[in-house]
Amino acid sequence: MPKPPLITLLTDFGLADYYVAAMKGVILGICPDACLVDISHEIRAFGIEEAAIVLGQAYCCFPQGTIHVVVVDPGVGSARRPLLVEAAGHFFIGPDNGALTVPMDRDHRFKAREINAVRYFGRPVSNTFHGRDVFAPIAAHLAGGVSPSKMGRRISDPMRLDFGGPVQEANGCWTGRVLYIDRFGNLVTNFRVADATEIASRGFEMLVGSTTVVRYSEAYASVPAGQAFVISGSSGYLEVSVNKGDASQMTRAEAGSSVTLIFS
Amino acid sequence: MPKPPLITLLTDFGLADYYVAAMKGVILGICPDACLVDISHEIRAFGIEEAAIVLGQAYCCFPQGTIHVVVVDPGVGSARRPLLVEAAGHFFIGPDNGALTVPMDRDHRFKAREINAVRYFGRPVSNTFHGRDVFAPIAAHLAGGVSPSKMGRRISDPMRLDFGGPVQEANGCWTGRVLYIDRFGNLVTNFRVADATEIASRGFEMLVGSTTVVRYSEAYASVPAGQAFVISGSSGYLEVSVNKGDASQMTRAEAGSSVTLIFS
Amino acid sequence: MPKPPLITLLTDFGLADYYVAAMKGVILGICPDACLVDISHEIRAFGIEEAAIVLGQAYCCFPQGTIHVVVVDPGVGSARRPLLVEAAGHFFIGPDNGALTVPMDRDHRFKAREINAVRYFGRPVSNTFHGRDVFAPIAAHLAGGVSPSKMGRRISDPMRLDFGGPVQEANGCWTGRVLYIDRFGNLVTNFRVADATEIASRGFEMLVGSTTVVRYSEAYASVPAGQAFVISGSSGYLEVSVNKGDASQMTRAEAGSSVTLIFS
Repeated sequence: MPKPPLITLLTDFGLADYYVAAMKGVILGICPDACLVDISHEIRAFGIEEAAIVLGQAYCCFPQGTIHVVVVDPGVGSARRPLLVEAAGHFFIGPDNGALTVPMDRDHRFKAREINAVRYFGRPVSNTFHGRDVFAPIAAHLAGGVSPSKMGRRISDPMRLDFGGPVQEANGCWTGRVLYIDRFGNLVTNFRVADATEIASRGFEMLVGSTTVVRYSEAYASVPAGQAFVISGSSGYLEVSVNKGDASQMTRAEAGSSVTLIFS
Repeated sequence: MPKPPLITLLTDFGLADYYVAAMKGVILGICPDACLVDISHEIRAFGIEEAAIVLGQAYCCFPQGTIHVVVVDPGVGSARRPLLVEAAGHFFIGPDNGALTVPMDRDHRFKAREINAVRYFGRPVSNTFHGRDVFAPIAAHLAGGVSPSKMGRRISDPMRLDFGGPVQEANGCWTGRVLYIDRFGNLVTNFRVADATEIASRGFEMLVGSTTVVRYSEAYASVPAGQAFVISGSSGYLEVSVNKGDASQMTRAEAGSSVTLIFS
Repeated sequence: MPKPPLITLLTDFGLADYYVAAMKGVILGICPDACLVDISHEIRAFGIEEAAIVLGQAYCCFPQGTIHVVVVDPGVGSARRPLLVEAAGHFFIGPDNGALTVPMDRDHRFKAREINAVRYFGRPVSNTFHGRDVFAPIAAHLAGGVSPSKMGRRISDPMRLDFGGPVQEANGCWTGRVLYIDRFGNLVTNFRVADATEIASRGFEMLVGSTTVVRYSEAYASVPAGQAFVISGSSGYLEVSVNKGDASQMTRAEAGSSVTLIFS
């Protein structure tokens, strides 16, 4: 574990309300030397898949032993389980709803536990804010040295989302989709960067929204301003971008929009 | 006081401008090991009551000895006093305009001081940015070990807002109001959670905006998606919520909207 | 250098995506005790001049030895150089595109280096995210004690923006412009606070957007609510403000709008 212990927060709480601060206050009350880093609190309300994607982009930038707390929790107060996952040398804490899918997909030797160590919970535990009452204190006690094995029993069936890779159609073309749109309007698709070599070497057409993209580039700056192109994104997926422009506006694509790839 | 010293910031400065960073730079220049936590900087511009409510929700999640700096300051540059309040084991610093009301309401043994220790102020003190020039350096010196008594003389008349609890009307119903609307559209009312037992056990109608709510629930997940209900909120007030929906949109209520409670 | 080392971040990345967190994770992986402070991540996408202005307002609030990382980088992946500047006792790191202009303008003895110490870069270096792969690790190694001279050779021609002070017209009036509009709608002009004495002592008319402002005040609170006036801003420029109002809305001025000053 890093010294000082490092805890990240990823939620759909926004930054206007007191929710994020409440979690930080609880953590620092238990583990005063924790270093807290926000990943994002602007996940769409109840956007579990979006949280999973952003977590998958972010966690691997942090040192091993980091504790990532992910609270997008439409099922708070229901029977959904609180989860602690160890994967790829990191710790992940949050409700068992699929938001922790990516590290489990990437490290098949992950260990998942159902958190039931009520002695480490806040008191009383509300029905509406387990970020403050369950996940924050568990993260803080873990950071403070409590063993993961004290947090609950191993389980083998944590919920995992199926992001679905691109699918080859009968006519030979591939159909994928837009996973995520970033601040700059870049369209993060579910085509992997590993496919870039084939795309770059063969002619192709990528249909997304109202636009047909036919160019691949290794860098924004190599493409004339205002032109759409495919690029290997920093998070491991192919992205559709516009140099000094906004691909989302140009193509009118949205998260979930279908993406069709046709090799020439 | 926690080690390292813990300082929170609550302002209406937003996150786009340099104002919040200026305060943090000043604090860390004086007290380099301070741990800084943002409560919110998205308080509506000049929204003193909103700041008071968010402070009341947040401060009690932090450990005793935390220093909370609250700067929503439409009167900056006028004769309004700078204030240091000790209450409930916490410290509160900000202009004397009512934003520190809740901790004083909750701890009647509070001590309030008019800050006049100009030797701890930044130099020169501007007329427009006391967050940087007065409140941040005072917080940092307090965190660094200067005694509260060195900051100024005790006063007995700090400004306090009257949030006004619900009022019983001649016809027996109760009239309250919406204090605050959070990111999820939950309507935080000024009915206290302590009233939940009576509400839950008796039939009731709660009229808010365009909607009549007749259901009480202890958890979002127990109510069908899309249905409005009353719930005991995490911050001590009754809230009107919609499971997986937005009560603010459904009811068209706003902060300040009246809420009428009628027992059957 | 402060202990713990202090690193600020100023970008156009927004707070919704994983980009800012990626930079922080990289920094903390290299320099675990770094203290990280956000200046702003809400710079308009590709807004180099806006970043330069906000940096100029913010850096001087931090203690000497602070490392400021400024990544507004429309040219990422092109031949634009990565830059390390020492000026006014601070360190500045970012692409060589003008965003670091203000500290160089203020300290003519600045030292600029082209960063080429690839042994301190992340691996591999992407073409799209030098914030994570170049600037964050360089800042972290600098914070960890690597000498600036190890980061690259001195250069004499870093790119600098010309903000252009106000210009006197043939008819004797001065023409400046709106540099920046803050959250409160205050119009930050490029007239310097040093000119305030003359403005305050002589009658004047300042034309901005649809409004003619004729009043100077040292404090918001001295002016009736809703009236526009000129004030000495906290960042060293004259600003047009409206007490308890929004000067941007009232005048319909925007960043870049011309400002005409006529002495009576």
